[in-house]
Amino acid sequence: VQTWLVNGRLQNAISLDDRGLAYGDGLFETIAWRRGQPRFFDRHLARLREGCRRLDIPAPPDAAIADEIGIAAAGSERGTVKIIVTRGCGRRGYAWEADIVPSRIVGFDPAPAEGRPAAGGASVVYCDTPASCNPRLAGLKTLNRLDNVIARAELRGRRAEEGLMFDDENRLVGGTMSNLFVVRNRELATPLLDRAGVRGVMRDVVMERAREAGIACREIGIARSFLESADEIFLTNALTGLRPVTLCGSSRLEAGPVTATLRAALLECGVEECAA
Amino acid sequence: VQTWLVNGRLQNAISLDDRGLAYGDGLFETIAWRRGQPRFFDRHLARLREGCRRLDIPAPPDAAIADEIGIAAAGSERGTVKIIVTRGCGRRGYAWEADIVPSRIVGFDPAPAEGRPAAGGASVVYCDTPASCNPRLAGLKTLNRLDNVIARAELRGRRAEEGLMFDDENRLVGGTMSNLFVVRNRELATPLLDRAGVRGVMRDVVMERAREAGIACREIGIARSFLESADEIFLTNALTGLRPVTLCGSSRLEAGPVTATLRAALLECGVEECAA
Repeated sequence: VQTWLVNGRLQNAISLDDRGLAYGDGLFETIAWRRGQPRFFDRHLARLREGCRRLDIPAPPDAAIADEIGIAAAGSERGTVKIIVTRGCGRRGYAWEADIVPSRIVGFDPAPAEGRPAAGGASVVYCDTPASCNPRLAGLKTLNRLDNVIARAELRGRRAEEGLMFDDENRLVGGTMSNLFVVRNRELATPLLDRAGVRGVMRDVVMERAREAGIACREIGIARSFLESADEIFLTNALTGLRPVTLCGSSRLEAGPVTATLRAALLECGVEECAA
Repeated sequence: VQTWLVNGRLQNAISLDDRGLAYGDGLFETIAWRRGQPRFFDRHLARLREGCRRLDIPAPPDAAIADEIGIAAAGSERGTVKIIVTRGCGRRGYAWEADIVPSRIVGFDPAPAEGRPAAGGASVVYCDTPASCNPRLAGLKTLNRLDNVIARAELRGRRAEEGLMFDDENRLVGGTMSNLFVVRNRELATPLLDRAGVRGVMRDVVMERAREAGIACREIGIARSFLESADEIFLTNALTGLRPVTLCGSSRLEAGPVTATLRAALLECGVEECAA
């Protein structure tokens, strides 16, 4: 990341007493910066606020974040914005003091998105690393992401763009850095994120666009067998949009009509990565 | 924390690109510094090495850590040493570069241990916050501790020293910052940490001393009903030693003969907190 601000000040380091480092006590957002603007900014802010509420961290003012993104990204057409909010600096120990001040961290990275996809569809494999399960934290983009880190490392040396993670009951949670949708009989299904996983902003957008297009979408428990009987599968991610999966484990798939409809709908609302 | 060193240099901040902050991608140790020495140092180093092995982080050299603790704690008789090892600084994204250099962070805090216990036994309550479950991470003291943080916050305004956490199958994992042992019929039981929790150094010491004293100890699944039929219960923690529980939920208990035997055994091997 090229430029960082902490509570409005340009700096590239943070106190070693920050609880974000000590315990992963905080949240983050990764936002596509396109045509000099943060894409789906309101949705990212809403998710961040919801996460702060659930973790009992005072949410940062939207205006401060907007200003700081403007400073960090000044002059750039394209890149990635990262926001981190931690509970702040404290003494040792899990308890925190009443007067603790959250750390509001904003960064801008002009580099292309990690794993910027090649043209065509994505290959995905199954990861052995399970997703960490905790209903109290499920859906949030917390700083506790070690399961994703370890799962991601399984992809080294494999011809796969993404790895799928399952919970301890062998229900699909998603990719290491994306949400997953399955199409069967022209209906959409995506994992119910009640025990693990991150509720992605692009996932929400896709579910809304699907409803508008008259495509039913259910959040359900998804087993491997369900995946293997899919007509279409695609991945969603705030930075890369909607990517069709053309190889899932050993199953070959094609980008079908539902995928095409939703890619067109996303392109219409600014997800340029969905251009053909 | 009063003094920090990062990779051997005195500093109080760390790069915002460190993956310890970004993802909780690392481990930590909290070590009692007593009579000018780190207690059970070899055991803490062994657990740290094991954690590094499981997370595929090159383990820091023992000698470097020992030297840096000496610098941070110089002149102090008593306090707390904290070691943090992260995977290091990297670009955005869960994957890491082959040449990444781990961050080795050593700190010393002369303040008394957090929640330094009052005399007498501990009161414990049941937390609603579940423990995060992941067999791949279970037992390790990783930087992903948000479940403990949220559970600990449940104790505010309650007359309890510790809160007990359960996994999603309602099996006991331990306290938010301690391991727990149950005595029934003069035999010890402690949660099997195969899905969640931290394998505490004091837990290991207690299990060894128990065996030497001819007290059987099993690692098993422990339900609430098992706790409620206990003859004795105690908590273990590297900083506070072994503490009898005298109130568990609504059950009153007394420190019994097994607790007394083990406290005496710990006192003999330097756990001064177990003095009567």
